[in-house]
Amino acid sequence: MERAILEGVMKLLEEGVPLAELSIERVARTAGVGKATIYRRWSGKEELFVDVVRAAEPPDPELPGTSLRDDLVVLLESLRRRGLVSRSSAILHNVYAQMKSSPRIWAAYHAGVIAPRRDLALDLLRRAQENGEIRADIDLDLANDMFVGPMLVRSVMRPDAELPEGLAEQIVDAVLDGLRPVRSTAP
Amino acid sequence: MERAILEGVMKLLEEGVPLAELSIERVARTAGVGKATIYRRWSGKEELFVDVVRAAEPPDPELPGTSLRDDLVVLLESLRRRGLVSRSSAILHNVYAQMKSSPRIWAAYHAGVIAPRRDLALDLLRRAQENGEIRADIDLDLANDMFVGPMLVRSVMRPDAELPEGLAEQIVDAVLDGLRPVRSTAP
Repeated sequence: MERAILEGVMKLLEEGVPLAELSIERVARTAGVGKATIYRRWSGKEELFVDVVRAAEPPDPELPGTSLRDDLVVLLESLRRRGLVSRSSAILHNVYAQMKSSPRIWAAYHAGVIAPRRDLALDLLRRAQENGEIRADIDLDLANDMFVGPMLVRSVMRPDAELPEGLAEQIVDAVLDGLRPVRSTAP
Repeated sequence: MERAILEGVMKLLEEGVPLAELSIERVARTAGVGKATIYRRWSGKEELFVDVVRAAEPPDPELPGTSLRDDLVVLLESLRRRGLVSRSSAILHNVYAQMKSSPRIWAAYHAGVIAPRRDLALDLLRRAQENGEIRADIDLDLANDMFVGPMLVRSVMRPDAELPEGLAEQIVDAVLDGLRPVRSTAP
């Protein structure tokens, strides 16, 4: 049932229906269910829509827990895959663009998808800092942006840039080790 | 004359005229000039529009040339300022969003504004790598994304994130030195 509703929304989007015109009523008609059925599962259009996007994206990664580097690589590799999916799917690409111009839907997507992913990464970095694997004087929000930023800049803001295999490993190693040939001072 | 035309476009945008409805004819009428005057200076709406955005943004930075760190800090500080201006100016914010949904205008902005800035940074990094100030095994595109990514993620993709004074210095130092407390291996 839930699947049919999510697929109904996707079908409407594939047909080019703009997000702003996607009413619960229309979704119900397309999926062949009553509006009440939709409202039992989702509190509104925003929440339903976030689940549609989530279903179209690769699933969130499971961290292997074998090392800080391994976990960071898995996190960044999942961002890379998401970038590749969004590039290859014209619908998803269009949906992201529309989402950003709707503050309520963007807020729901942020709360439901982005914030939990960010918390996962911040927890990992916090444990690494407590274990002495990351410098004690680095702000963890900044550390997270340092890993995530280069991948997002490429996948979102430079649509012509490559997202080659091995990019996640390259970014993780370069951010952990730094760009200087030798450390200027001991920590 | 040029100033009056750019200001005419800005005035229309301030009045809420969508980019798609901004014709050269309408701009000419607002600025009190003939269409031919506009076409003598700009080959089309896209080029004119890019100059409007450029005039509203802080000017491109001059690199002091005193050290790699100083130059990188100046580059990132100018990105931070641009982020602050775009946040404080509802018009500019709206204009960026509209620009991204118009492939022709986005391509013109990219060619006229973003690409030259990127080349400036890549030249700086290339010289630094030749001087041995940056590891020889680092891809320069990646190095640039490592500096620029964390600032752009904050200013563009996390509108709730802070852009405090000193952020440029923090990013530059952290990217140059790396996040590990000690280097794991010599280069």
